Amino acid sequence: MAILLFTDFGSNDLYVGQLEAVLDRHAPGVRVIHLLHEAPPFNVRAAAHLLAALARDLPGHVFLGVVDPGVGSERGAVVLRADGQWYVGPDNGLFSVIAARASSTSVWRITAQPAGSSPSFHGRDVFAPVAAAVATEDFPNRDVAPTADLAVRFGGDDLAEVVYIDHFGNAFTGIRARDMPAARRLVAKGWEIPHARVFAEAAPGTAFWYENSSGLVEIAVNQGHAARELGLAVGTPVSWR
Amino acid sequence: MAILLFTDFGSNDLYVGQLEAVLDRHAPGVRVIHLLHEAPPFNVRAAAHLLAALARDLPGHVFLGVVDPGVGSERGAVVLRADGQWYVGPDNGLFSVIAARASSTSVWRITAQPAGSSPSFHGRDVFAPVAAAVATEDFPNRDVAPTADLAVRFGGDDLAEVVYIDHFGNAFTGIRARDMPAARRLVAKGWEIPHARVFAEAAPGTAFWYENSSGLVEIAVNQGHAARELGLAVGTPVSWR
Amino acid sequence: MAILLFTDFGSNDLYVGQLEAVLDRHAPGVRVIHLLHEAPPFNVRAAAHLLAALARDLPGHVFLGVVDPGVGSERGAVVLRADGQWYVGPDNGLFSVIAARASSTSVWRITAQPAGSSPSFHGRDVFAPVAAAVATEDFPNRDVAPTADLAVRFGGDDLAEVVYIDHFGNAFTGIRARDMPAARRLVAKGWEIPHARVFAEAAPGTAFWYENSSGLVEIAVNQGHAARELGLAVGTPVSWR
Repeated sequence: MAILLFTDFGSNDLYVGQLEAVLDRHAPGVRVIHLLHEAPPFNVRAAAHLLAALARDLPGHVFLGVVDPGVGSERGAVVLRADGQWYVGPDNGLFSVIAARASSTSVWRITAQPAGSSPSFHGRDVFAPVAAAVATEDFPNRDVAPTADLAVRFGGDDLAEVVYIDHFGNAFTGIRARDMPAARRLVAKGWEIPHARVFAEAAPGTAFWYENSSGLVEIAVNQGHAARELGLAVGTPVSWR
Repeated sequence: MAILLFTDFGSNDLYVGQLEAVLDRHAPGVRVIHLLHEAPPFNVRAAAHLLAALARDLPGHVFLGVVDPGVGSERGAVVLRADGQWYVGPDNGLFSVIAARASSTSVWRITAQPAGSSPSFHGRDVFAPVAAAVATEDFPNRDVAPTADLAVRFGGDDLAEVVYIDHFGNAFTGIRARDMPAARRLVAKGWEIPHARVFAEAAPGTAFWYENSSGLVEIAVNQGHAARELGLAVGTPVSWR
Repeated sequence: MAILLFTDFGSNDLYVGQLEAVLDRHAPGVRVIHLLHEAPPFNVRAAAHLLAALARDLPGHVFLGVVDPGVGSERGAVVLRADGQWYVGPDNGLFSVIAARASSTSVWRITAQPAGSSPSFHGRDVFAPVAAAVATEDFPNRDVAPTADLAVRFGGDDLAEVVYIDHFGNAFTGIRARDMPAARRLVAKGWEIPHARVFAEAAPGTAFWYENSSGLVEIAVNQGHAARELGLAVGTPVSWR
């Protein structure tokens, strides 16, 4: 069982490697996969929807998720088991979209605060040892206590906002594409955006929406940078016509 | 046998981790090495020359290579075995410099299109399972069929262009340095650039060419940013005097 | 025993993957952790203090460290064993803060220069094989010779300068926080900066210093970008009032 990291720690910074070193100490043979370290910073709701979409296609893993503007405050720390997958991180809503969409869930509160923990780096000092325990099947252990539910919940509905901009400039929304008729037009920043199945179906320089590789409605410009050209950012609302 | 990734997916984006999760599922104990995820985007010819240079020094691996402006169109997918090394990716010329320079090659077409594949993410859904099969020696399998040759070929000659700019601003060309006399001057953007063996041989602030650590002719400025100072970009032509 | 990489090679460039491929060849089952590839470039003293702080909390590893403005010149290459941890890299002072603070050290000179080594990529060609030998306990081997001490030493005192800026804009100094009274004010660029224990203790938009997760005095702005707002860069001197 691999450990997948989903954080806003920055891919190129010195935080992720320290976290991986702790995972290595507690779970020596376990693969660590860097899923995303550029999750929408400080935007837990957008991150929660993005993580829910990514996790759908990655069964059988432990996700260590940290988007945590409240680190150092009194928010709790949790382990969620949802439909056979595991999530370890802050109890601030980050896993609540996943929980709301799951058919079965169990939740534990993390009660341990290891000696010498930094108040500013729970990812390394609090969450990583617990994620390692889950991955090595030393769980539940004495660092956790069962609890009834997550403390913070956003619900499982789609989010009609931009939740992520990739490095090509394509804008992920929090809307699952599966039931969306191709005849609908997406509206964002005053633009009316038609559907295309693949990039090659849209004329160069024109915007379109399509079902992306994570099952979300995504806004793209063929051979262009959609976010820049249409003025999209994480949090931009979208609607349908 | 490790799997080496060479793509234009972006190092910091959410694509690479998803691909690695698929490799982990199909080839659990196999090391995955992120060789480059900033390959020249949409420039298959430059990427093909860069990959050929890098692969020369990395024997005994499986390369999963994706620079694929035509994803979603009808271009094929291939496995190339060249002088004992393996390459999995699009049949768009990316491996053709390697094939042309090899003394022995075998080629397979990838015929499988796994159920639920995304038309925009063949790296994860089509190439990764096949690369995992090669790495775990479950190959050839029923996902492939032997074929006579690659569909697209650029040939094995050097490419007298800039093919990569590193983060120091040094400009790799597609020219192999081994036979190049140190007396020659390289010409790029009107500049005449003399040879130096190492950075320390050039005066601070002056440009020089040298054989870089991948065996290519590289343009650098000692304590400077060659690309910015000389106006070089991927695709800039170079010549000799 | 994992191998931790600490370099200025750039996280997104093509150097790190080549180095990891060499480690894989020489130490197949050993985990490689990318601790930092954006170490202060060309600033060995700042990097030495940052590495000393990071290594304090990561016992039992081999560090392969490269910040090496003199690559290609005559500087030596070393292996340092300090209080049970291992360091492999250039003998230019990078490990000298660690050595000065350790209670016991042993030092070896790297004497081997593998055939075909690139003069510009000792990380891959000279240091990586030795780090792999240490990690696989094939050490000392014939590539090294014992020596009395490091050639270059900065000493173990704190460094009253900014040594690192993280991607949030927080500025690490080279000062260890443990003995610093919270009543002291830090002075940098003319600003007088009071202490806070955690971000939540400082009003939004105000600067503070605190003990960061590596035990260093760090300058931050709650919900802001300290480096930009206060004009801090690696090398900026700081003092106390």
